[in-house]
Amino acid sequence: MDALLDFAGQFLSQFQSPTLSFLLGGALLAAFGSKLTIPNPVYQFVVFVLLLKIGMKGGVEIREANLLAMLLPAVFSVVTGLLIVLLGQAVFARLPGIRREDGLATAGLFGAVSASSLAAAIVMLEEQGIAFEAWVPALYPFMDIPALVLAIVLATRHRQQAEGEAGDANGEPTPRKVDTWAIVKESLQGSALSALILGLALGLLARPESVLQSFYEPVFRGLLSVLMLVLGMEAWSRLRELKAVAHWFALYALVGPVVHGLIAFGLGWIAHHAVGFSPGGVVLLAVIAASNSDISGPPTIRAGIPWANPSTYIGASTSVGTPVAIALCIPLFAALGKLVFGG
Amino acid sequence: MDALLDFAGQFLSQFQSPTLSFLLGGALLAAFGSKLTIPNPVYQFVVFVLLLKIGMKGGVEIREANLLAMLLPAVFSVVTGLLIVLLGQAVFARLPGIRREDGLATAGLFGAVSASSLAAAIVMLEEQGIAFEAWVPALYPFMDIPALVLAIVLATRHRQQAEGEAGDANGEPTPRKVDTWAIVKESLQGSALSALILGLALGLLARPESVLQSFYEPVFRGLLSVLMLVLGMEAWSRLRELKAVAHWFALYALVGPVVHGLIAFGLGWIAHHAVGFSPGGVVLLAVIAASNSDISGPPTIRAGIPWANPSTYIGASTSVGTPVAIALCIPLFAALGKLVFGG
Amino acid sequence: MDALLDFAGQFLSQFQSPTLSFLLGGALLAAFGSKLTIPNPVYQFVVFVLLLKIGMKGGVEIREANLLAMLLPAVFSVVTGLLIVLLGQAVFARLPGIRREDGLATAGLFGAVSASSLAAAIVMLEEQGIAFEAWVPALYPFMDIPALVLAIVLATRHRQQAEGEAGDANGEPTPRKVDTWAIVKESLQGSALSALILGLALGLLARPESVLQSFYEPVFRGLLSVLMLVLGMEAWSRLRELKAVAHWFALYALVGPVVHGLIAFGLGWIAHHAVGFSPGGVVLLAVIAASNSDISGPPTIRAGIPWANPSTYIGASTSVGTPVAIALCIPLFAALGKLVFGG
Repeated sequence: MDALLDFAGQFLSQFQSPTLSFLLGGALLAAFGSKLTIPNPVYQFVVFVLLLKIGMKGGVEIREANLLAMLLPAVFSVVTGLLIVLLGQAVFARLPGIRREDGLATAGLFGAVSASSLAAAIVMLEEQGIAFEAWVPALYPFMDIPALVLAIVLATRHRQQAEGEAGDANGEPTPRKVDTWAIVKESLQGSALSALILGLALGLLARPESVLQSFYEPVFRGLLSVLMLVLGMEAWSRLRELKAVAHWFALYALVGPVVHGLIAFGLGWIAHHAVGFSPGGVVLLAVIAASNSDISGPPTIRAGIPWANPSTYIGASTSVGTPVAIALCIPLFAALGKLVFGG
Repeated sequence: MDALLDFAGQFLSQFQSPTLSFLLGGALLAAFGSKLTIPNPVYQFVVFVLLLKIGMKGGVEIREANLLAMLLPAVFSVVTGLLIVLLGQAVFARLPGIRREDGLATAGLFGAVSASSLAAAIVMLEEQGIAFEAWVPALYPFMDIPALVLAIVLATRHRQQAEGEAGDANGEPTPRKVDTWAIVKESLQGSALSALILGLALGLLARPESVLQSFYEPVFRGLLSVLMLVLGMEAWSRLRELKAVAHWFALYALVGPVVHGLIAFGLGWIAHHAVGFSPGGVVLLAVIAASNSDISGPPTIRAGIPWANPSTYIGASTSVGTPVAIALCIPLFAALGKLVFGG
Repeated sequence: MDALLDFAGQFLSQFQSPTLSFLLGGALLAAFGSKLTIPNPVYQFVVFVLLLKIGMKGGVEIREANLLAMLLPAVFSVVTGLLIVLLGQAVFARLPGIRREDGLATAGLFGAVSASSLAAAIVMLEEQGIAFEAWVPALYPFMDIPALVLAIVLATRHRQQAEGEAGDANGEPTPRKVDTWAIVKESLQGSALSALILGLALGLLARPESVLQSFYEPVFRGLLSVLMLVLGMEAWSRLRELKAVAHWFALYALVGPVVHGLIAFGLGWIAHHAVGFSPGGVVLLAVIAASNSDISGPPTIRAGIPWANPSTYIGASTSVGTPVAIALCIPLFAALGKLVFGG
C-alpha cells in the first residue's frame, strides 16, 4: 500500500520537472491562442543538437563498454520493435472498419522510436539521479528500423495477395518485390537517425570529449525545454485532426504506448537478471518502446505504404501518442522502476 | 557639484558596457552599409529566450516574495501606464496638425513596454551591482496592457463622437462598442507577453531552476548582445522613415521617454519610502516607463486603431524612442538612482 | 628520422580532433545521401558568432599589445596576399587553355582568407596547447583585402589592354578606371569582414569581457563543430562541380594552399627571429595564407570581375581549396611548427 502511494507521489511530482512543465506550458499556450512560435530553422537545429549529443555520449561510452553486455538488450530491442507491429496488426484486424494498410502504418510508427521522447526520458532520469548505461540510447535504431521495415513488408505483401486474388487486367497476378535494403537506407538517411549515427560514429572513432563538455552537454537541457514547448504546442494544435480519425486509432494511441512499454519493461527485467542491465536502462528501454516516431518515421511510412491514409497514423502519433509517451509513460515507468528495483 | 560630476561620469562610463556598445556597434554597421544581418528566425528565438528567462526568474522569486510588497509597485505601474497615455493625449491635442488618432496611437505605444529595453536594463543593473527584487520585471504587463487598452478606448470613443456628430448616411448616430477584453486578450496572445507570462507561470508553478541555471542564465547576456546589435541596425535603417513623420512626433519620441521615466521614478521613490521598494527596483520601473513597445505593441495598435497612420507611431518608437530609452534613459536613471539613493 | 616519424604521427593524430572529425563526418553524411541539413539562418548566425568572438578577443588583446610587435607580421601579411596573386597569375599564364580572368579570379580567392579555416586553426592550436598572440587573427584583413584588390585591378587592366588593342566600334580605346576604394569598401561591407571588424572595434574600444566569458567563449568550439559539419557536407556536394572545372584548376587548388602556407611560414619564421613572433603565430599565419575565401570573397570577385566564369573559382575554392586548407594544411603546419620550433 505504501509502495503504491509512493508510486502515485513519484508519478505526480514529475509534472513539476522542467521537461513535463514545458510540454504542458506549450499545450496551454496553444490552447490560449498565443502567437508565440519557435521558428522552424531553430527547431530543426535544436533536434539536431539533441540527437548528436545523445549519439556522441553513447559512442564515447560504447568505446569502453563491454559489448557482450549490450548484446541481449539489443536483441530485445529488435524483438520489441517486431512484437509491437505484429501486435498492432492483430489488434487492428479485430477492430471494425479499419483498412489493413492504415492499421499497419500506425503500428509501424508506434513500433518506431521518438527522438524527443528519448531525450526527455534521459533528462528526467538524470534529474532523479537514476543511473543507466550511456549506450542505452544507442538501442534506438535496433528497435526503430525493424519495426518500420516489418510494417512496410507486411503491408506490401497484403496488397500483393489482394491484387493476386483479384488479378490484373489479364487475370495475371502482379508480383512486386519489397526492397528491404531501400527501406533501411531511407530510415538511416532521415535527419533524426543520421544525426544520432553521426554522433555515435564521432563518439566511437574520434575524440569529441572537449566539445561535448564545452557545448553539447551544457546546452542539452535548455534545448530540450525548447523542444518540449514545441511538442506541447504541436500536440494541442493537432487535436482537431484527431477528430477526423476513427476513434479506434485514438484509443490505440492512448493504450498502445503503455502496453508497448510494459513489454519492453518485462524483457528489460529479464536482461537485468541475466546480464545485469541497469534499472535505469530498463526504464529507458520501456520509454523507447512506448514512444512512437513523430519526426523521422512518417516520411518513411508515407514512401513505403503510399496507399495508406496519413491522417490516421500521423493524427494518432503526433496528437495522442507522443504526449502520452512523454507525459504519462516516462513518469509511469520511472515510478515502476523504483517500485520493482527499489531506489 | 561633486555629485553632478559623479553623475556625468557614471552616465558616460556606461557606453563601454557590452549592452550599449553593441547597440552603437549595430548602428555604426548599418551606417557603413554593412551586409551583416542576424537572420530573422534567430532574432525571434533570441527575444523568446530573453523573455522566458526574465519571466521564469521573476516567477521563481514571486514564489517566495512578500506579495504585499509587490502591491504598491504594481498599482503604480498601472497608474504610470495610464498617465503616459493621458499626458500624450493632452500634449498632442495642443500641437498643430496632428490627427487625434495618430497622437493616441503613439502615446499608447510609449505607455506600453519594450521587452528589449527591459532586458538591457536588467543586465546593465547587474553589471553595476545594483540589486533589485527579481519580480520587478513582472510589473511589465501591469503597465503595458492598461496603456494599450486606454489608447484604443480613447481613440475609438473619439471616433464615435465624431461620427455621432456627423451622423451616418441617414443622419443616425452609429454606436460602436469597444471590446476591452478582446484588446487585453490580443496583448496577452502576442509573442512577447506570451513568452513572459509562460516564464512567470513556469517559475511560479513548476521547478525550472535546473534548466534556468544550466541554460537560460548562461546564455542571457550573450543573446542580449545580439539583440542590441539588431536594435542598433534597425534604429539606423529606420531613421529615413522618421523624416516622413511630422517633426512633432520626433520631438515627442525624444523627450517623452525621459518625462515618462521621471514620473515612474517619482512614484517608485514613494514606494521606496512606503514599502521598502529597492533603489534598483525604482530604476528598473523608471526604465520600463521610459521604454516603448517596439515588438508586440504595434500589431495591437494597428488592429485596435486601424485608421491611424502606422508611419507616425512606428517611426517615432523604433527609430527614436527605443534608442533613447536604451542609450539615454538606462544610464540616466541608473546614475540618478545612485545620486538619489547613494550607493 | 625520429623527427619525421613524429611529424607523421602529429599529422595523423589530428584527424581525431573534434574539428577535423566533424569535417570528415559532414563529408561522409553527404556521401551517404543523408537528408540532415543545418538550416541556413542557423549557419549564418554560427559564422557571425565565430567571427565576432575572434575579433573581440583580438581587439581586447591589441588594447594591451605592443603595436610595434604587430607591425612586421602585418606587413608580411600584405606581402603574402600580394605574392599569392602574382604567383597565381604567373602559373595560370603558363598553363594551356586558361582564360586570364578565370586565373586571376581564382588566384584572388586563394590569396584572400577563409574565416572558417581561421576559426578551425585557432581551436586546433588551443587543443594542442600551442600558444599564439591573440591579435594574430586580426591579420586577416591585411592579407584578404590586398589580394582581392590586386586580382581585380590586374584583371581589369588586362581587359582594358585587350579592349585598347581591339579598339571599340570606332577604333577608339575605351579607358575604364578601377575604383580601388570601392573594392576595399565592398570587402569591408561583406558579412564576414564586418563581423570581424565589429568584434575588433568592440574589443578595442568597449569592455566586452563579461559577455565574451559568459557566452562567446563557451559556445565557440561547439559552433565551430557545427560549421565544420556544414563545410564537410558542402565540399562533398560540390565535388561534381569540380569535374566541370578544367583539371588545372583542381590541381592548383590542391597544391596552392601548401605553397602559399609555406611562403607565409617562411616570412613568419623571419618575424620570429626579428621581433619574437610566436611559433603558434607563425603556424596561424601559414594557415591564413593557405586558406581561401569561401564565404565573403566570391561575391566581391563576382562583382569585381563579372566576366570571369564563377564555376572555375568557386569550384576550385569550395570543393578542393577549403578541405585541403583545413584537413591537410592545419595539421601539416602545426606539425611543421613543432618540427622547426620544437615543443
